[in-house]
Amino acid sequence: MSSRITIEKIEELAKRRGFFWQSSEIYGGFGGFYDYGHLGFLLKSKFENAWRKFFLSLNDMFYEISPAVIMPEQVFQASGHLKSFQDPLCKCKKCGNIERADHIIENALKESFEGKTPKELTELIRKHNIRCPKCGGEFGEVGELNMMFPLNIGADSETKAYLRPETAQGAYVNFKRMFEILRKKLPLGLAIIGKAYRNEISPRQLLIRTREFSQAELQIFFDPEKINEHPRWEDVADYQLRLTTVKDRKKIIEMTCEDVNKKIGLPKFYVYYMAKIQQFYFNVMKIPKELFRFKELSEEEKAFYNKYHWDIELNLASLGGFKEIAGIHYRTDHDLSGHQNLSKEKMSVSIDGKKIIPHVIELSFGVDRNIYALLELAYSEERGQIILKFPRNLSPVDVAILPLVKKDGMPEKAREVENILKQNFVVFYDESGSIGRRYAREDERGTAFAVTIDSQTMQDDTVTLRDRDTTVQIRVPVKELTKTINKLMHYEIDFRKAGKVVYEP
Amino acid sequence: MSSRITIEKIEELAKRRGFFWQSSEIYGGFGGFYDYGHLGFLLKSKFENAWRKFFLSLNDMFYEISPAVIMPEQVFQASGHLKSFQDPLCKCKKCGNIERADHIIENALKESFEGKTPKELTELIRKHNIRCPKCGGEFGEVGELNMMFPLNIGADSETKAYLRPETAQGAYVNFKRMFEILRKKLPLGLAIIGKAYRNEISPRQLLIRTREFSQAELQIFFDPEKINEHPRWEDVADYQLRLTTVKDRKKIIEMTCEDVNKKIGLPKFYVYYMAKIQQFYFNVMKIPKELFRFKELSEEEKAFYNKYHWDIELNLASLGGFKEIAGIHYRTDHDLSGHQNLSKEKMSVSIDGKKIIPHVIELSFGVDRNIYALLELAYSEERGQIILKFPRNLSPVDVAILPLVKKDGMPEKAREVENILKQNFVVFYDESGSIGRRYAREDERGTAFAVTIDSQTMQDDTVTLRDRDTTVQIRVPVKELTKTINKLMHYEIDFRKAGKVVYEP
Repeated sequence: MSSRITIEKIEELAKRRGFFWQSSEIYGGFGGFYDYGHLGFLLKSKFENAWRKFFLSLNDMFYEISPAVIMPEQVFQASGHLKSFQDPLCKCKKCGNIERADHIIENALKESFEGKTPKELTELIRKHNIRCPKCGGEFGEVGELNMMFPLNIGADSETKAYLRPETAQGAYVNFKRMFEILRKKLPLGLAIIGKAYRNEISPRQLLIRTREFSQAELQIFFDPEKINEHPRWEDVADYQLRLTTVKDRKKIIEMTCEDVNKKIGLPKFYVYYMAKIQQFYFNVMKIPKELFRFKELSEEEKAFYNKYHWDIELNLASLGGFKEIAGIHYRTDHDLSGHQNLSKEKMSVSIDGKKIIPHVIELSFGVDRNIYALLELAYSEERGQIILKFPRNLSPVDVAILPLVKKDGMPEKAREVENILKQNFVVFYDESGSIGRRYAREDERGTAFAVTIDSQTMQDDTVTLRDRDTTVQIRVPVKELTKTINKLMHYEIDFRKAGKVVYEP
Repeated sequence: MSSRITIEKIEELAKRRGFFWQSSEIYGGFGGFYDYGHLGFLLKSKFENAWRKFFLSLNDMFYEISPAVIMPEQVFQASGHLKSFQDPLCKCKKCGNIERADHIIENALKESFEGKTPKELTELIRKHNIRCPKCGGEFGEVGELNMMFPLNIGADSETKAYLRPETAQGAYVNFKRMFEILRKKLPLGLAIIGKAYRNEISPRQLLIRTREFSQAELQIFFDPEKINEHPRWEDVADYQLRLTTVKDRKKIIEMTCEDVNKKIGLPKFYVYYMAKIQQFYFNVMKIPKELFRFKELSEEEKAFYNKYHWDIELNLASLGGFKEIAGIHYRTDHDLSGHQNLSKEKMSVSIDGKKIIPHVIELSFGVDRNIYALLELAYSEERGQIILKFPRNLSPVDVAILPLVKKDGMPEKAREVENILKQNFVVFYDESGSIGRRYAREDERGTAFAVTIDSQTMQDDTVTLRDRDTTVQIRVPVKELTKTINKLMHYEIDFRKAGKVVYEP
């Protein structure tokens, strides 16, 4: 078994164990759509809850809302998506194959061409004589396709609407009402976790580029005059960020927030949230430091609505390098002003005696991409098998309950323990097969802990608690199990000190 | 203030306090779409989590999955939705107004006409000379409209797909893979909580009939030979169900499960889940018994895929009577066989040495309708204000943390208490305004408990805990607060016995 991680290995495991697979596979699969099985659903829930807990705790004025996914055409006219949310396409004159022009050129020339105009891309294709990868035919002019999915609503199809291409607009159209309800204060944060849709030309790399995907986004509305301050700036001033700038794309530099503010010139209110995002990846997601970076986007690469745009990237070996999994965007008043202009509803608010249209910093996370990253980074081949070493707090299943044998009252006792633990944890009961096979199965599913009920349990009401990553086992009284697992899950105590060690590999 | 509940009162409160409102209201509102604000989001999460906990706990083999919302055309060809998921429409010859024919006739004749053919409906309109409610004009022939939203996927729009009109098909197309992964046993339950979409002609009654809505559905796959048994039948045999049958639509009868099985002839495997659904409404949702019933649907009214079809209805005063909010459906092998026929993938499994295509019982809940019901049933006008008396376990916010005054260290102490409580509860901190106004505000938001930090707290580390429904206040030590609130939330102890009573109204 080669220990090099590949996308194929992740796909195989994800299908076999029930994380995810291409949608509607009985009909040959549906490109760009994925179904999450029971373990994938649990992992996704864990990620979303961890995200929620971390980011909504940053400020009393950060709240989650849940607006509709389908929105009327005016929304995307105001936001600019109708006009500017295009992909460049080229079509083979010979076989009719359609490809994303920038990707085709990127593959041929091994360079990034994001943000080029259709005309520039056509010229590049001509100049380098880039041919259709399917039939070798010649490509026609590069055209553009709007990436949103249109819908007609009503019996007469009288209303034109779109599936949202980002959750963000749901926060903008509701900003005024939420501001009124939520004590008329700034900053105000509106978070949305939910589906978004894009008609990607070339969906690829499993969960990385899909047509239906989940986002976790937080729009922070603030007074633009206060962009270079944050009440908790001192907490992060000396914190080191890992950055790659446009100037030198080959290097990752480490720089304190203070220096990022002073030398790179990013405002404090923006840098503060860069620090919080990095802390989320280091402390909650347990991402090794060297695999993380912020990447500055050039003028050409930035999304059309952003003034500052840095991607959050993780180095994922299965995908050959750093890959975007989140972004932090200074959208200015682009969206609120756009909606004010079109709807004629005032988006300004009174703050400290003056009227302003708030500006927005957006924290935007691709949920599915983070799930993929969690799977790859957890993936390990050891002890002659696959082990998914998720951070304990993000393991899809917290605890497996395993009676040693199917007799002597052990299954009944195990059910008792299950009933206690399921008040606080995701548990999974299994009594089939040898204990070794059951451990191996749980390791491959990434279950954080295994509780074994054996003959000693029947006498002294203690169980063995097994750690997935080390296979070390300790003995813990049933009545202390919830408390012990809770502490272990949050890495508050060392596993070997949480009970009497009864097995060391 | 009149104490009669109306849909207008619910709408007003829902908007003012941040539960929900019509989507994209800055563009004049978007018919059939609703946005949930922060309180609505929390209430919805509470409902979904309570549903999950109750129904997935019924069997070790019940799991949640999360398939894509967009599915290819073949799925709905196989399921029959492409052919049979139609609404009858009539269009006014004079003003062009389009209405659902059955609703128009229902309004005119005060009788239900669900399930009639377009021809029959046309005849009824002619016979009773039913006219356009907008202009008095004459209606043309009744036609049909498929209620699904179509989409074209890919650059060439080469793939036809639909937004799912029910979550169920995601469980069917994945059944075989999940069966293989999940230990090859029956019954197997696959739950899906998520969005579904229908192009309703006349969206109405707030969250009751919308175009974008959330469902919580559980598909239970079982061996059809075992339909008249359930391993836990004895638990429910004597349990009384509240039923309205086709024979007598005016009456609610109470009948034990045993009798429902013997006298009405519904199979035990179906009746068992009727009992569990009723228990969910009585014990978790705390619905008063007399407001609940199962309603048998006639042959004409049943969805096309169902052999048995009973609706779960709640009597909602604001909507003028019993209203469907869930359903329990015996779908036989309709869906699995449909997919087998079209995809040519075998849907049969080996159980006890024989090959069978499992049959399905579906528990289907409209999440938004249940949210509406929770709001109406909680709505109360007392003490000169509105109080939302949600069941404690379903209150959007569990605890408000209120320092009595903004000085003497009380805000700081309150933040400490907040930090403790937010580990386990949804908390909301508020220091603005008089304590009476803050209590009133929380009552209207439906917050279950208020914790007040006062000068005594600073001396003896106790706080007052206030019960929303009675306004009784007790004194509780901070170190016991989590435990006490936990017990109260699950109705394990009486409020007056959870501490020293310091205020009685």
